[in-house]
Amino acid sequence: MPEFLTLLPPKESLDKLLRNLPDPKLATETVNTDSALGRITATDLRAPHALPEFPRSTVDGFAVKVRDTYGASDSLPAYLNLIGECPMGATPDLEITPTTTAIIHTGGMLPKGADAVVMLEYTQTLSKGGRPSAPTDEIEIFRAVADGENVIRIGEDVAKDALIKPKGSPIRPAEVGGLMALGFTQVEVVQCPKIGVISSGDEVVEPEKRPQPGQVRDINSYTLATLVEKYGGEPVVYGIVADSMDAMKVAISRALDECEMVLITAGSSASARDMTAAAIDELGDPGVLVHGVNTRPGKPTILGVCDGKAVIGLPGNPVSALVNGYVFVAPLVRRLLGQSAEELRPSVSAKLTVNISSQAGREDWIPIRLTAKNAEKSYLANPIFGKSNLIFTLVGADGLLKISSDATGLSAGEMVEVILI
Amino acid sequence: MPEFLTLLPPKESLDKLLRNLPDPKLATETVNTDSALGRITATDLRAPHALPEFPRSTVDGFAVKVRDTYGASDSLPAYLNLIGECPMGATPDLEITPTTTAIIHTGGMLPKGADAVVMLEYTQTLSKGGRPSAPTDEIEIFRAVADGENVIRIGEDVAKDALIKPKGSPIRPAEVGGLMALGFTQVEVVQCPKIGVISSGDEVVEPEKRPQPGQVRDINSYTLATLVEKYGGEPVVYGIVADSMDAMKVAISRALDECEMVLITAGSSASARDMTAAAIDELGDPGVLVHGVNTRPGKPTILGVCDGKAVIGLPGNPVSALVNGYVFVAPLVRRLLGQSAEELRPSVSAKLTVNISSQAGREDWIPIRLTAKNAEKSYLANPIFGKSNLIFTLVGADGLLKISSDATGLSAGEMVEVILI
Repeated sequence: MPEFLTLLPPKESLDKLLRNLPDPKLATETVNTDSALGRITATDLRAPHALPEFPRSTVDGFAVKVRDTYGASDSLPAYLNLIGECPMGATPDLEITPTTTAIIHTGGMLPKGADAVVMLEYTQTLSKGGRPSAPTDEIEIFRAVADGENVIRIGEDVAKDALIKPKGSPIRPAEVGGLMALGFTQVEVVQCPKIGVISSGDEVVEPEKRPQPGQVRDINSYTLATLVEKYGGEPVVYGIVADSMDAMKVAISRALDECEMVLITAGSSASARDMTAAAIDELGDPGVLVHGVNTRPGKPTILGVCDGKAVIGLPGNPVSALVNGYVFVAPLVRRLLGQSAEELRPSVSAKLTVNISSQAGREDWIPIRLTAKNAEKSYLANPIFGKSNLIFTLVGADGLLKISSDATGLSAGEMVEVILI
Repeated sequence: MPEFLTLLPPKESLDKLLRNLPDPKLATETVNTDSALGRITATDLRAPHALPEFPRSTVDGFAVKVRDTYGASDSLPAYLNLIGECPMGATPDLEITPTTTAIIHTGGMLPKGADAVVMLEYTQTLSKGGRPSAPTDEIEIFRAVADGENVIRIGEDVAKDALIKPKGSPIRPAEVGGLMALGFTQVEVVQCPKIGVISSGDEVVEPEKRPQPGQVRDINSYTLATLVEKYGGEPVVYGIVADSMDAMKVAISRALDECEMVLITAGSSASARDMTAAAIDELGDPGVLVHGVNTRPGKPTILGVCDGKAVIGLPGNPVSALVNGYVFVAPLVRRLLGQSAEELRPSVSAKLTVNISSQAGREDWIPIRLTAKNAEKSYLANPIFGKSNLIFTLVGADGLLKISSDATGLSAGEMVEVILI
């Protein structure tokens, strides 16, 4: 009955699981770009045309021939004849010839013959009216410009056929803009992979029930479903399954049929965990790959594969389940979306307020509350201590601090990276 | 006609705007907790009961009276009589009296009379069968335990009536779990504030149209709408408004009626910007508060208030509009959701690859592409240079690097914080 697990480090555990998974088959769908925030591109996107398609001014000023401005200065301005104004949104119906110029606005199309723009601030209009007007006015130019100065050239933003975003990229506000700029009002994205979530434990009841003595409400179905949602998956919650081998096998088997990955939080006892492992072994090959991960919280985590689909047994303890959800489930969901397993983990740098000791050889994850040291500059990282199964240690936390397995602790005053959750 | 703006630093600009805004009226709604990810709590949430409501074991082992384990060691074990097993999910129908013990599983309810649990690993069962069974078996205890060891006491996770989450808090997976644990299957959240988005510019056409020479597709309506969505607001896109004072006033006025904040990206030219400012001044008090911010990109940003609602005029240049969206719009959306204006800006630490110079007195925002230096340890921050109005400088970026106004640049090799976008 005593359980002495053979523990693997978290990274090795995940790598072992990944080596036993086939490349994900990515189902795709087409969505409107303006509602694609957070979705993942399913194809390499290439520019159907250059951007911009015409040379544009980046400033308000005067379109000129560079040659006409050579040597111009405050004390020795160049004088140019104003021949008109470039309209916005249309091809200018004028041509810049030597010693002539035209008014141009930011974003306006450069007229024929012009090769640069002089900023308004470096010019003066010699006229009687308030506004420069052609053909009578003369423009003083106080500064020389180089070829292409204050101009965006054709294709300078993006060249025709350039790869604008490789498949597997998340769509953020900038991508929505880039896609719209090129006329992609729809975009092919990866379908949200379905992730089955199964809870078990004879002590666990649905949250809407009032628990009797000895009972607790189901937390893990909901934290894990939300975590899956946060990372772009579609959670399928199967509810609470009885602590019996048959019930467990029926539930996992159904979830394997309907989903692309299955998460199980077993009852917290060793026998319930063993039952999860046995069920995974029976339901497909190669079955359990890792039983026991050298991390705290989360030691009794099970990683397995049933006929090409990952099955993860997470500890029943809600903090372990959620922390190991961030460690193992998040990269697997990202993978099913065609993203690289590696994630840019959003974090903030903060100064640790107290010493934290840790056992060498084990990776520790400590809940951290961040407080502002001073509004602009930096944060203080305040560890939230407490037994590792208190969900409110995470509710009160802004992030997690990882203490790597080769460290025996961290010192007060050290700058640490707190991973936001 | 030349435009010499009086520039304010970004922080002062935002502060000035905030001083002129009334406290937001927060409309609320009740949603199911399991679909509340990312929403903001509308009320202080207090625990309706303690958690846990009964003392629970944190390990698999034996429930004991602490006194019976005093002095127990490998060489001198304590011997206890096994009287039964605590069931999961029910009150144990047994009582620990001196020299007796009972099997208990992780998460199980402590039986009457017990005050600690000895881990299975520090015990040995003296029996003939494989599994310990009462009443014949004797349990050897190899380690002394302290009062409450391996036990979560009543209310140790959260006490009855404790503030579990103040209003204005975002609901993350951990909060979903904490709420479910206490039976909150529904939660009152702040309604998504409606944010109007208006584009203008005679050169701007709808993204589904093929632009003619001189024309460009609307980018800003979509990047800003997506940014609003990302921060929890509900964008209301009003489309492209003609570059005329009347059309602009009609559009802003309608948006002010229907929304709680209005964003306008004016045509990029100085005259279009001046028109936006004039319209804001005419449509409500106190009107324009800031015209010109000392930042790059984004200098010609306008911040105003019309009768209690913020109206932001962003530059037509899509990069300026989006970067200043992150700087000004995001905190204002957060404020309309009842969150503090201050945000924990997700960032990653990275090593700058090249020198970047900057003008003192101006805050610069540089698009950064992050590359892994080595998978585990750190990132390299590669600035993406390019004229500030090329949207694909942002599409290619993972984040933005802020160079504060008192710096004249940053050196290659410096560790910098890259704010993820």
